[in-house]
Amino acid sequence: MRKTALIASLLLALASGTAHADDGYRLWLRYAETKAPGDAVTVQGSSPMLAAAAAEVRRGLPAGAGPVLLATAADPRVAALRLPVTRLGEEGYLVRSVRIDGRAVTLVTGNGDRGILYGAFALLRHLDSGGAAGTVDLVSAPKIKLRVLNHWDNLDGRVERGYAGQSIWDWWNLPDDRDPRYVDYARANASIGLNGTVLNNVNAKAESLTPRYIAKAAALADIFRPYGIKVYLSARFSAPVELGGLATANPKDPKVAAWWRAKADEIYRAIPDFGGFLVKANSEGQPGPRDYGASHADGANMLAAAVRPHGGIVMWRAFVYADTDPSDRAKQAYDEFKPLDGQFADNVIVQVKNGAIDFQPREPFHPLFGAMPRTPLAIEFQITKEYLGFASHLAYLAPLFAETLEADTRGRGAPLTVAKVVEGAPQGHKLSAMAGVANIGNARDWSGTTFNQANWYAFGRLAWDPSLNSEAIAREWAAQTFGADPRIVDPAVKMMMKSREAVVDYTGPLGLAHVMATGHHYGPGPWVSELKRPEWNPVYYHRADRAGIGFDRTRTGSNAVAQYAPAVARRYADPRTTPEAELLWFHHLPWTYRLASGATLWEAMVAHYDRGVATVGELRREWDGVRPLVDDERWTKTAAMLAVQEREAIWWRDASLAYWMSLNGLPLPAGARAPAHDLAWYKAQSFPDAPGNPQ
Amino acid sequence: MRKTALIASLLLALASGTAHADDGYRLWLRYAETKAPGDAVTVQGSSPMLAAAAAEVRRGLPAGAGPVLLATAADPRVAALRLPVTRLGEEGYLVRSVRIDGRAVTLVTGNGDRGILYGAFALLRHLDSGGAAGTVDLVSAPKIKLRVLNHWDNLDGRVERGYAGQSIWDWWNLPDDRDPRYVDYARANASIGLNGTVLNNVNAKAESLTPRYIAKAAALADIFRPYGIKVYLSARFSAPVELGGLATANPKDPKVAAWWRAKADEIYRAIPDFGGFLVKANSEGQPGPRDYGASHADGANMLAAAVRPHGGIVMWRAFVYADTDPSDRAKQAYDEFKPLDGQFADNVIVQVKNGAIDFQPREPFHPLFGAMPRTPLAIEFQITKEYLGFASHLAYLAPLFAETLEADTRGRGAPLTVAKVVEGAPQGHKLSAMAGVANIGNARDWSGTTFNQANWYAFGRLAWDPSLNSEAIAREWAAQTFGADPRIVDPAVKMMMKSREAVVDYTGPLGLAHVMATGHHYGPGPWVSELKRPEWNPVYYHRADRAGIGFDRTRTGSNAVAQYAPAVARRYADPRTTPEAELLWFHHLPWTYRLASGATLWEAMVAHYDRGVATVGELRREWDGVRPLVDDERWTKTAAMLAVQEREAIWWRDASLAYWMSLNGLPLPAGARAPAHDLAWYKAQSFPDAPGNPQ
Repeated sequence: MRKTALIASLLLALASGTAHADDGYRLWLRYAETKAPGDAVTVQGSSPMLAAAAAEVRRGLPAGAGPVLLATAADPRVAALRLPVTRLGEEGYLVRSVRIDGRAVTLVTGNGDRGILYGAFALLRHLDSGGAAGTVDLVSAPKIKLRVLNHWDNLDGRVERGYAGQSIWDWWNLPDDRDPRYVDYARANASIGLNGTVLNNVNAKAESLTPRYIAKAAALADIFRPYGIKVYLSARFSAPVELGGLATANPKDPKVAAWWRAKADEIYRAIPDFGGFLVKANSEGQPGPRDYGASHADGANMLAAAVRPHGGIVMWRAFVYADTDPSDRAKQAYDEFKPLDGQFADNVIVQVKNGAIDFQPREPFHPLFGAMPRTPLAIEFQITKEYLGFASHLAYLAPLFAETLEADTRGRGAPLTVAKVVEGAPQGHKLSAMAGVANIGNARDWSGTTFNQANWYAFGRLAWDPSLNSEAIAREWAAQTFGADPRIVDPAVKMMMKSREAVVDYTGPLGLAHVMATGHHYGPGPWVSELKRPEWNPVYYHRADRAGIGFDRTRTGSNAVAQYAPAVARRYADPRTTPEAELLWFHHLPWTYRLASGATLWEAMVAHYDRGVATVGELRREWDGVRPLVDDERWTKTAAMLAVQEREAIWWRDASLAYWMSLNGLPLPAGARAPAHDLAWYKAQSFPDAPGNPQ
Repeated sequence: MRKTALIASLLLALASGTAHADDGYRLWLRYAETKAPGDAVTVQGSSPMLAAAAAEVRRGLPAGAGPVLLATAADPRVAALRLPVTRLGEEGYLVRSVRIDGRAVTLVTGNGDRGILYGAFALLRHLDSGGAAGTVDLVSAPKIKLRVLNHWDNLDGRVERGYAGQSIWDWWNLPDDRDPRYVDYARANASIGLNGTVLNNVNAKAESLTPRYIAKAAALADIFRPYGIKVYLSARFSAPVELGGLATANPKDPKVAAWWRAKADEIYRAIPDFGGFLVKANSEGQPGPRDYGASHADGANMLAAAVRPHGGIVMWRAFVYADTDPSDRAKQAYDEFKPLDGQFADNVIVQVKNGAIDFQPREPFHPLFGAMPRTPLAIEFQITKEYLGFASHLAYLAPLFAETLEADTRGRGAPLTVAKVVEGAPQGHKLSAMAGVANIGNARDWSGTTFNQANWYAFGRLAWDPSLNSEAIAREWAAQTFGADPRIVDPAVKMMMKSREAVVDYTGPLGLAHVMATGHHYGPGPWVSELKRPEWNPVYYHRADRAGIGFDRTRTGSNAVAQYAPAVARRYADPRTTPEAELLWFHHLPWTYRLASGATLWEAMVAHYDRGVATVGELRREWDGVRPLVDDERWTKTAAMLAVQEREAIWWRDASLAYWMSLNGLPLPAGARAPAHDLAWYKAQSFPDAPGNPQ
C-alpha cells in the first residue's frame, strides 16, 4: 500500500515534471524510460571518448537489452572473433550480437575510440527505431571524411538566416560558463556522425580571431572533443589589417603570410586539434585575395600553409557573388573556379553550394561538380530554411539533398554522381567534406519545431553515407522522435516525404527560383525589380512578361548549360528533354507552351500552386489524426505551425498568381480560385522585424 | 519485488530526466516531489482564475498538507467563519487553518478570485519556506495597485539592457504559437503578486501598435488573464505620423487625438482589459509633446482621454534627458515635471526612476518624490543590472530598492517615506504603481543565473508591500529556491545581503556614479571624456582633478539639493551631515578631506574598493561551502559566475585606482596592492559585442 502510494506520487511527479519534458529538447535522443542496469555496460580501455560512449549507452540502453561490451578490435577477445574490421577505417563501427566466454553480449567495436563512439549511437538508434536486441548486426563506415555544421552565428548572438532564437554559443559568458547544452549539442552531432563544427558566421568578423574569442572557442573545443567534434573558425581575409595593423592582406605579401602563421600557431596552442579555417572571400562584400589581384587559390594556399604544420585544413567557399554585373549570376562560380583546378594546396577543399544560385527550394546541381577533377570539392547544403518557410514551414530536406547527391554529372556512360564527386574516391582525393548551414538556435527545441530537427538529423546521416534513402532516414528519425509505433511513424513519414515538393509547388514551381521578398527572404516578391544590382531582383530570375516566363540559359541566352558535361548540357539545352521540374531554370517559354501532359505552361503553373496548398492541407489532416499518439506540447506546436504554413502557402499562391496575371493577362483556368486580394495588397505587406536578416 | 524494481526504475528515470531539471527553469516554484492527492484540493465556484489557482495548489501541495478549500468570502461556509475580510480589498487574501463542518481544512479566501489566486501562491510559499501545514494564518493585501514589469524588449527579439538572452516574446511566431513558457511567466508573476506587464521597450517602435502586433499582444493577454496579469504597451508618441499618415503628432491637434482614440478602440476590441500605455517622451531622442511646444501633461492627458472610456491608464515617464545642455542632468526631471503638478488627468500616473540619474548602484532618492503631492507617482526600479555587473555579478537588489523606499522625503517631523508617496494613500490618490525593468530573457533560467531570479522575486514582493524586510524576502526566496534547510538558506541569505554593497564598493564608492564604459555600460570607464554631450561623460559626474573629486550639488555648485524638502536639502548641503555613502554625489571634496573615521577621502576610497573585492571573495567561499547542498548544475554555474565577478571586481578596482592616481598623484595607502596593469591597458579594453546595447 505504501509502495503503491509512492509509485503513484512518483508517477505524478514524472507527469508534472514532464509538463515541459516534451518540449523537444531531447531531440531524437529520447531513450526509453526504463533503463537497463548500469552494470549491463562494460567498457574495455579508458579515454574521455570511450567514457562518453559508455555513458551514452548507459543513459539509453533499455531494460532487457542484455549486456553490452565496448572494446576496440585490438582487444584480444574481440580479435578472437575475427570480425571484418579492416574496412571500418578509423571511424567505422561494427555492432553485433556475439558470444564471448560463452555469454551472449552485444559488442560495439571499431578500430579506435571513434568507431566505438559511433557504434554506441548506432546501437541506440537501432533499438529506439524498434530493432531487436538479441540479433544486432550493424556495420558502417563513413564515406565522407569531414562532416561539418556551419553556424552562421555572429559574435553578438544573432544568427544569420537563423529562425530558432539566438546562437547557442553564449559568447559573452564563455569560457567561464560551460552550459550543459554544449554537451547535448555534441551528443546530438555525434549520434548522427558529424565530426566538425564551424562556430562563427562565414560573414566573419576579425574579432573572432582575437585571444578573447580564441579562449571561448577553446572552451567549446574542450567540451566537444570527447564526442569527436572538431572546432573550425570562419576567417575574415582582411584580419591581418584589422587585427595585425598591416597595410594589406595581400596573400603574396610575406608579412601577411607570417601574420597568419603566427595566428594559426596561437590558435593551435589553445586548440591542439583545431580543424582549420572556413573562408568566404570576394563574395557579397567580403574581402578576399582578388582585392589584391591574386586568385582564390593564392588566398587559400597562403592560409593552408599557415595551418599545415598543425594538420589543419582550409575550406574555401566557391559561393562568389561579386559586384560586377554578370550576364548570369549562375555562371560566376564556375567561371572563377574552374580555371583554378589543380592549383589548390592539398589541405584545401573548395566548398560548393548544391546549386549555382543560393539554396532555392529546387536547383539543378552545381556545374562545378564534375568540372574540377583535380580539386576536392565539399558540398554545402542549407539546413536552415532561408527559402523554404523559415522554421515555420514543414519541409523535410533529405529529398532535396538527395536530389543533388544523386544527380549524374556526366549524363551518359558510367555515371559519376555528385555524391561520388564529393566522396572523392574516384579521383583519389585525401579530403572529402559535406557542410550544412545549421538550423540550430537557443530555442528550447533547438530548431524551432520538432520536424525541423529532422533536417539536422538527415544532414548528418547523409554526410555519413550519401547513398542513404531519404524515406528510410525519415522513418528512423520519426521512430526515435515519436516512438516506434507505426501508427505515428507512418503518417509522420508520409508528411515528411511530400513536404518539400509542396514548398516548391506553392513558392515557385517548374524551375522558378529567387522569387522571394527582399532582405529577409520571407514570403513572395516576384514583382521586385527596383533593387540596385540586377541580379538582386526576382524579375532578373524569372524574366516574365506578357509573352512568357523563364531564364534562357541555352545558347540563345546565357549559355550556362555549357558549364555542364556535354551530355548533361545537351539535355538541358532542349525544353523537351529538360526535366519539367527544372524547366524555367533553363528556358524562357511562352505561357501557352504545351507540356507533355497537354496542359499549357500557365495551366500547369496554376495546378502546381494549387497542389502545393492542397498538400499542406493533407499534412494538417495527417497530423490531426495522430493527436492521441503525440504528447500535447509537441503536437500543439506542430499543429499551430502547420496552420501557419497553410495560410502562408495560400498567400504565396495568391500573390504569385496575382502578379503573373498582371503580366500575362490570362484568365485563371476553370475552377481555379481567384487570389484573395489584389496585387497592390500583396506588394504592400511588410515585415520589418523578420528574423534572420544579415546585419 | 516487482514494485521495488518499478520504483527503482522510476527513480532512475526521474534522475536522468532531471539531468536538466535543475537548470533553474522552475524559478522559485519548485515544489515538493511528493504531492498531496489531487482530491485534497476543493474549489468553490468556477472561473479561469479559480481554475488556475486550484491547479497551482494541486501542482504544489506537498503530501501530508491536509485538505485545502478555495472559496470566496461570500461562500456561506466561509461567511459563517466571520473572518476579517473587509480590509482585504479586491486583491488581498486570507489563508487560515480552520474547521468547516467539523473538519480541519486550510481555507484560501478573498473577496474575489484575485484574492484566492494570490492566497493560493501565499500558501505554497508558506509551505515551501518551511512553514507548518496545520497552523496557517496568512493575511495580506497589496499596498500598491499596479505592480508592473517593464520589458525593454524590441520587436526583433533584442532586449535593451537584457543579459539573459533574447526576448521571451517570440513575436515572429505569435499569435499562432503559444509557447507554454508564457504560462509559466504568468504563474511566476502571479506568485509574487505582479498584475501587469508592459510588453515592449519604452524606446518604442510604432509598429507595435499595428494590427499585426496588436493580435500578438492579444494572444499574450489571453494567456496571462487567468493569472491576473494585464498587458500594457509602450506607445511611440509619433505613431499618428508613422502609422496614421498625419502631418503631426501635436497633442493639441484634434486629428491626432482622434487617431489615438481610434487606436485605443482598436486595441480594446482585441484586448478588452488592456492596461494602457507607457510613454517615454522627449527623452534620449524619443518624440514627445515638447516637439510641438506642448507640455508633458498635454501629451499624457491626450492619450489618457483615448483610453479613459475603456478604463485604461497612461504611465508617463519622468525620465527626461533632453539634448539641451543642462547645468546638472540630475535636476532636469524635477525642473520639467514639478511645475506640472495638478495638471495631469486622473488616469495618468507619472513614473519616476528611483534616483535622478539612471539606476546607478547607489543613488539618493529622486527629488520628485514628495514634490508633486497632487500627482500619483509610480516608482521605477531596474531589475536588470545594467550598472551592477549585468547578469554575471551577484547583486541582490532588495536592499537597493528598500533604501529608496525607506527614504524620508521630508527629513523632519512626521516622516513621509518614498514608499508612502508611491502608495499614494496619504494624498488620497486612486492610482498607485511600482514598475520594474525586467531581467527576463529566453535563457533557460529566465534571468541568466539563479541569484538574478531573486531580484525579480524581490521586486514583486516589495511592489505588493514596500515595507517588507529585504532579508526576510531573501530568506523566503532562498528557501523556495534551494530548499528550506538552514545550512543552505543561511549562507545564501548572507551572500545576498552583502552583495549589493560589494558592487557599490568595487565600482564607485562614497557616492560616485556613472563611471562606467560607454554604450554597453560594461566595466570601468571613469576616464571617458570625449563624448559629444557633456553629461554623457563620466568625467562630468565625478569632476575629479589633481585637487579633489565629486559633483558639487550645493549652492556653490548646481544647487540640486534645493530640489529636496528644506530639511533634507539642509542635510545634503553640508558634507558633514551628508551620509558618507552619498558624499561625492553632493560634494566636491579634496582628496585629503578627512572622514569621520579620520581617514582621508583617498584612503577611504581605496579601502572601499578593496572591501568590494574582498567581499566577492567571501561570497565565493560561502558558495564553496554549500556545494553538497545544491544540485550540480546550479552550483557550477553560480560558482563560475562568482569567479567572473571576482575577476571583474579586481578589474574595476584596479582600473579605477589607476585612473584616480593619474589625476591625484597620490601614493596608495600602505599595504594596498598596485593595479595589475597601467592605465593605458585598462583604457584599451574593448567589448564590441557586449549584450544589451540599445539599437
